[in-house]
Amino acid sequence: MAAYEFDAVRLFAEGQFAPDAEISIGPDATNYLANVLRLRVGDEVLLFNGRDGEWRARIADLKKRGAMLVLRGQTRPQSVPCDLWYLFAPLKHARLDYMVQKAVEMGASVLQPVMTRRTQASRVNLERMHANAIEAAEQCGILSVAEVRPVAALDDLLAAWPAERTLVFCDEDAPPGGAPAALAAAPKGPLAVLVGPEGGFDPAERERLAALPGVVRLSLGPRILRADTAAVAALALVQAIRGDWR
Amino acid sequence: MAAYEFDAVRLFAEGQFAPDAEISIGPDATNYLANVLRLRVGDEVLLFNGRDGEWRARIADLKKRGAMLVLRGQTRPQSVPCDLWYLFAPLKHARLDYMVQKAVEMGASVLQPVMTRRTQASRVNLERMHANAIEAAEQCGILSVAEVRPVAALDDLLAAWPAERTLVFCDEDAPPGGAPAALAAAPKGPLAVLVGPEGGFDPAERERLAALPGVVRLSLGPRILRADTAAVAALALVQAIRGDWR
Repeated sequence: MAAYEFDAVRLFAEGQFAPDAEISIGPDATNYLANVLRLRVGDEVLLFNGRDGEWRARIADLKKRGAMLVLRGQTRPQSVPCDLWYLFAPLKHARLDYMVQKAVEMGASVLQPVMTRRTQASRVNLERMHANAIEAAEQCGILSVAEVRPVAALDDLLAAWPAERTLVFCDEDAPPGGAPAALAAAPKGPLAVLVGPEGGFDPAERERLAALPGVVRLSLGPRILRADTAAVAALALVQAIRGDWR
Repeated sequence: MAAYEFDAVRLFAEGQFAPDAEISIGPDATNYLANVLRLRVGDEVLLFNGRDGEWRARIADLKKRGAMLVLRGQTRPQSVPCDLWYLFAPLKHARLDYMVQKAVEMGASVLQPVMTRRTQASRVNLERMHANAIEAAEQCGILSVAEVRPVAALDDLLAAWPAERTLVFCDEDAPPGGAPAALAAAPKGPLAVLVGPEGGFDPAERERLAALPGVVRLSLGPRILRADTAAVAALALVQAIRGDWR
């Protein structure tokens, strides 16, 4: 929930975390600390590296080019990330940033951009997706950083689809209703959620998807949802019925 | 789903809809038609007024100050809107716009800004909320326009709460899990969903909420969600389990 959103400054930082370890951060994070938050040497923030949990860290040095922080102690152990893949046809620019942040907030551990026949965005900035995944983790207190996978063609993904992972496929042609029951009845084991392009799936793609063993065709109701809304809605149902909201 | 998002130009317009009725639209919508979409006299769009369904309309006159369209025929009958109230502590600016649009996409029929002790936004632009509700309806093919209610204090709303309406209250302190069961077990009758401010509810407010007859305390999982994400997630669960996604 939103309550703790702004309770502390939480930054992702590379490095080996241990008591009294010195952790350096780059110019962007430093600028945020010094000029946005107006923090100074001696102030404390929270750091995480995606592996070693969350640590209290004291700002020991603060320059334009970067800052150095000293780890004081662990405030939270590393959480075990969900095993939940989020597959999506990339959107353009700001709405893709937004969708990536939302998927991370909802607990996706893998972000897999998928090219379909009707995908509009031709190029995908994976660096920017990674930065958005980190920003969402920082803001939402998530201690693991979602893995950003290279863009793949839907057909290639389906051809090599892991048998044990159930694909939940948001299908505007799925019969309305029954989403909770369909998710509850899906095969045990890990899940992936696929939200299609704003032009919808090509009929051949939809056929291919429906033929995948154990696939769940998820209806997201009678109204048209934008892709970023569908992402949160589908992930909410999956987490509540099959995921770590239980 | 997202598939039909851009399949047609759909505009909200005031006026009495009937075959061959002449409907005028203002400078903003006209600018959008003429300069963004580059439509011309003779082109057709879809219009809805929130009461009479969706109609095909031909652009008969297009000036800078406004345009006049002639209704050709109804393409969809008026849909019956959900009876679902969305109560929320206002966010600031862009994120409020976003949250309002998302709530409308998810089927909220009433948008009720709620002032709580920790609400950050001091002023709420109801006109802007109304414009966002219309924009979301246009983009998502929703034929009814959500009602924007004046800002109210949480205590006043609870003091006059309608007995037949179940309040689903997104509570970061609710015991994790069980959201689908809690919603399924909630009293029959209409629902309202409340998402709190980003500072969380005050303890006295939470106590007051929990004491409301038939209230459902909804857990949205172990991660911190921004308020706009919580809105979509909570509404998705409500629609799938108790609403018009069934």
